[in-house]
Amino acid sequence: MKLLREKIQEEGIVLSDGVLKVDSFLNHQIDPILMKEIGSEFARLFKDEGITKIVTIESSGISPAVFAGLELGVKVIFARKRKSLTLTNNLLVSTVYSFTKQEENSIAVSSQFLNTSDRVLIIDDFLANGEAAKGLIEIVKKSGASVQGIGIVIEKSFQKGAGELKDLGYRVESLARIESLTEGKVQFVADQAEVVKA
Amino acid sequence: MKLLREKIQEEGIVLSDGVLKVDSFLNHQIDPILMKEIGSEFARLFKDEGITKIVTIESSGISPAVFAGLELGVKVIFARKRKSLTLTNNLLVSTVYSFTKQEENSIAVSSQFLNTSDRVLIIDDFLANGEAAKGLIEIVKKSGASVQGIGIVIEKSFQKGAGELKDLGYRVESLARIESLTEGKVQFVADQAEVVKA
Repeated sequence: MKLLREKIQEEGIVLSDGVLKVDSFLNHQIDPILMKEIGSEFARLFKDEGITKIVTIESSGISPAVFAGLELGVKVIFARKRKSLTLTNNLLVSTVYSFTKQEENSIAVSSQFLNTSDRVLIIDDFLANGEAAKGLIEIVKKSGASVQGIGIVIEKSFQKGAGELKDLGYRVESLARIESLTEGKVQFVADQAEVVKA
Repeated sequence: MKLLREKIQEEGIVLSDGVLKVDSFLNHQIDPILMKEIGSEFARLFKDEGITKIVTIESSGISPAVFAGLELGVKVIFARKRKSLTLTNNLLVSTVYSFTKQEENSIAVSSQFLNTSDRVLIIDDFLANGEAAKGLIEIVKKSGASVQGIGIVIEKSFQKGAGELKDLGYRVESLARIESLTEGKVQFVADQAEVVKA
């Protein structure tokens, strides 16, 4: 998605070889026009999958997910992150390890909002090692619903998440795919790179 | 806002005299069509205030805020909630006490996203005792920007927040105003009640 890649080049800050900060339009400040475009693109990509629900995770997944939900005409559920869970009645729970924050979180969705006939699109802001996506997949499976696809805003293709999810048979659509963040520069995966240079 | 009040009557669950659960369309599952309508209504109400930024708080404030931001043509910043803050460089910070959860959280916004010329609309999902709104006001003031208004999805008018904020001189616009939650029923403030009965 050209608009997104340009935004990443213009405003993204490479903090290290592994960390890209996009606080100016996605993770802290939000650009609603870009989010609408991103939502439309997800809707276009997954329009033939018979999606009935979108599942995302708080907080940065919510904006792209609600715009996709609006276009696909489906509701959006955001999984809640918690340090620990005591009360798990009627909750579908998974555990997610964050490499960036080096901490483990429980994520949870109320079981009443997903059922066996749901065809779910998972949306998230970043895909790196795939921990969050795998946690969301686990939650959807526990509900008996099916995962029809995974929509990612920014994929760090040099980390293992995308490959693993594809190996598991999931359709993963990432709107920007980053090959490397070395030398303080964002390098996109080759098939997208020439569009950025143009 | 009629559509919102109807949705509250249909799907809201009164957990106690003080607590209304709206997990099916606002706080956990999100109804994107309703959120778009809510965003449009905020945009209509505050269109003459020269708004340049919207500030909200994760997670449930984000959906109504991004739709309002899209219509007003401004960016949205969501304050992050944290148990504690060690690194506060370049952060505008406030402390918010949650009566519901009986815990104190730090909330923070990066100082780079607000400046003295900004005219801010604060948006949040609920207004009860006003703790979150006052925390957001404090953050905006620390940046030197001005608060032009406060847009609330659901106001619990029987708690002190709305009155206090108005006494402080702020324009507060709440799309649904609840007078009481006694006997397991949602009673709206009188000037709106007849619309619901109609």
